[in-house]
Amino acid sequence: MLIVKKFGGSSVANRERIFNVARRCIEDYKKGNDIVVVLSAMGDTTDELLELARSINPNAPKRELDMLLTTGEQVSVSLMAMAMHEMDIPAISLNAFQVRMHSTARYGNARFKRIDTDRIFHELEERKIVIVTGFQAVNKYDDYATLGRGGSDTTAVALAAALHADKCEIYTDVDGVYTADPRIVKNARKIDEIMYDEMLELATSGAKVLHNRSVEMAKKYGVELVVRSSLTSEEGTVVKEVVKMEKMLITGVAADRNTARISAMGVADKPGIAFKIFNTLAKRNINVDIILQSVGRDGTKDISFTVSEDDLKETLQILEEKKEALTIKEVTYNTNVSKVSIVGAGMLSNPGVAAKMFESLFNSNININMISTSEIRITVLIDEKDTDKAMVAIHDGFGLND
Amino acid sequence: MLIVKKFGGSSVANRERIFNVARRCIEDYKKGNDIVVVLSAMGDTTDELLELARSINPNAPKRELDMLLTTGEQVSVSLMAMAMHEMDIPAISLNAFQVRMHSTARYGNARFKRIDTDRIFHELEERKIVIVTGFQAVNKYDDYATLGRGGSDTTAVALAAALHADKCEIYTDVDGVYTADPRIVKNARKIDEIMYDEMLELATSGAKVLHNRSVEMAKKYGVELVVRSSLTSEEGTVVKEVVKMEKMLITGVAADRNTARISAMGVADKPGIAFKIFNTLAKRNINVDIILQSVGRDGTKDISFTVSEDDLKETLQILEEKKEALTIKEVTYNTNVSKVSIVGAGMLSNPGVAAKMFESLFNSNININMISTSEIRITVLIDEKDTDKAMVAIHDGFGLND
Repeated sequence: MLIVKKFGGSSVANRERIFNVARRCIEDYKKGNDIVVVLSAMGDTTDELLELARSINPNAPKRELDMLLTTGEQVSVSLMAMAMHEMDIPAISLNAFQVRMHSTARYGNARFKRIDTDRIFHELEERKIVIVTGFQAVNKYDDYATLGRGGSDTTAVALAAALHADKCEIYTDVDGVYTADPRIVKNARKIDEIMYDEMLELATSGAKVLHNRSVEMAKKYGVELVVRSSLTSEEGTVVKEVVKMEKMLITGVAADRNTARISAMGVADKPGIAFKIFNTLAKRNINVDIILQSVGRDGTKDISFTVSEDDLKETLQILEEKKEALTIKEVTYNTNVSKVSIVGAGMLSNPGVAAKMFESLFNSNININMISTSEIRITVLIDEKDTDKAMVAIHDGFGLND
Repeated sequence: MLIVKKFGGSSVANRERIFNVARRCIEDYKKGNDIVVVLSAMGDTTDELLELARSINPNAPKRELDMLLTTGEQVSVSLMAMAMHEMDIPAISLNAFQVRMHSTARYGNARFKRIDTDRIFHELEERKIVIVTGFQAVNKYDDYATLGRGGSDTTAVALAAALHADKCEIYTDVDGVYTADPRIVKNARKIDEIMYDEMLELATSGAKVLHNRSVEMAKKYGVELVVRSSLTSEEGTVVKEVVKMEKMLITGVAADRNTARISAMGVADKPGIAFKIFNTLAKRNINVDIILQSVGRDGTKDISFTVSEDDLKETLQILEEKKEALTIKEVTYNTNVSKVSIVGAGMLSNPGVAAKMFESLFNSNININMISTSEIRITVLIDEKDTDKAMVAIHDGFGLND
């Protein structure tokens, strides 16, 4: 079997953890598997390098930032190779230039275009464990370009796709995907198998365990993803196209507290205004989520929507700038809100799922502000303080712990 | 003019010094020159990375050590580019993969084979300051290989040769090459111009200011070298093929305390034994310096020679192993010795230089143990404790301060 294994920065933060990862890889290697390891930079290295850059130039060119940041992964892969050699296992580290991982030009947020496999297959044929720098690629200018946060997951999935790996294991500090965050919902249950689409909806709904770009890519290329713990040998959660039939209506509950609700008040009640507002925001790369439009009255209406709190400042700025063109009288906002979502392919064929969710919330006295749905997801916007209570209520309501 | 400028690790050890270097480069850039900057890793980075590697694997493969070490220069070049951008000057950093600096395969001690100039010229044509990682190259396996200590000087000279630069400036913490170490000989004088061969002899005789590999390469390709201070704007010392006629018999005095004298006693007095001894050492890459052979007596003789103190342990080991084959009765050694050399192309046509040197030493009551000469150098081995006194005596004897 060819297995791609990805370990994050905290898994390689010090000597002890580096050897722990080495042992995990060598275990599978000794069973006769071909092993490709993808690593992030050690611990807080990336943040420390960013801090160093800021001390020199707070507006450093992104091209040079990427040149700086890519050293982080190069350090961890070379140390990992040394650790494996110390354990008498042939290993070799490779960076993006050596593998030839090609990406789009955009510094700090590049996308993979093509990954050459010659070098990696050559090293695997010599029965070496191949250790590849995550998070980085080379663009058409022959410069380093990084993939943005969560980029090492994407590197692992992209490599697994290019190499036609049998599976891609993403090692984290939890032992799989849960029906809800176990720190909040005490009886949350680990999910054995989950479909790509469900995983994607969970990831975009606030479940931090996998980056949605990597899930999207896994789905596109049919890469079998496994989410598992770097600390235990538990089996973890398998993400794939078709899963075992289970009786579950829904697969999991997720919450996203990093949400702000914005209202544009007194907008002219005529066609095209809402379109203009959201088009303006889309052009600036701001992702608008749940949208609610009040019924028109006195020739005006109110348009409310949610954005990530990270985008709040910029969104307010844009609305202020374009206030007149967009016929907005007043803009208000609220950051004390959160989104709670249920996800499950089962709800496609089962009406009444939404009703059951609302009932659970009603029984716990939780008020719903806004609602949004996809084919396999229902999201409600509630007061942030009610988040934990809502998750427990829904989790219990659907009997997800069984 | 196209100028290659090289700055060592201490010149870029912190924010303030990075900006100081940036200013030095920008000054020449604004006069209309094309500027290529070669940098070492910041401060003690290389030693810290080696320490980190040792903590993982004391016998780490050299290939992986080079993969690790090369991150050091990549950090300094990217930070330098950021500093120049902060000062509104277009700059770009490049590593060995981007420039395509090709070397021999040997990790940790590679030699340049070919340097592509396309990328650098392309960036210079866009009026950018080009900042290149020193100390590193890419070998035929498409892997990083470092050039060994002093490698950044070699990178600068090699780039200057490949780009046909008008000059190559090596910035150090002294403002040029002196007639003697100014910390020892108070009235030592800065040399304005010096010939390659003289510089080479001084470098191999203990003057630390330039690495002899870089001087050799400068001579081979006719690169005009300038040694100058990164702290002052003094003119520095020019190293080139032909220099202005000066009245000086000798150019400078240098001392090397890192010397050990070894004696192989009671060796059979027959042909070929001395050859066998030195051939054995040469095969193990041990550089033997001054050699003295006693007159044969009772069918045996004593052979004495000097090696670098770094090689002492290994040399003694080899002699011990081959004691019988080499007919050695006993091996003795002394590390309390040092070599003092005078260098100068002027001595070629002036007999009596050696006599004058010996006279100066005699007047200061300094005993000479061994003597060795080249066309433009005379070296004496003396007691280590007499080193400073000898340098002052010779420096004064030849009137080098005038």
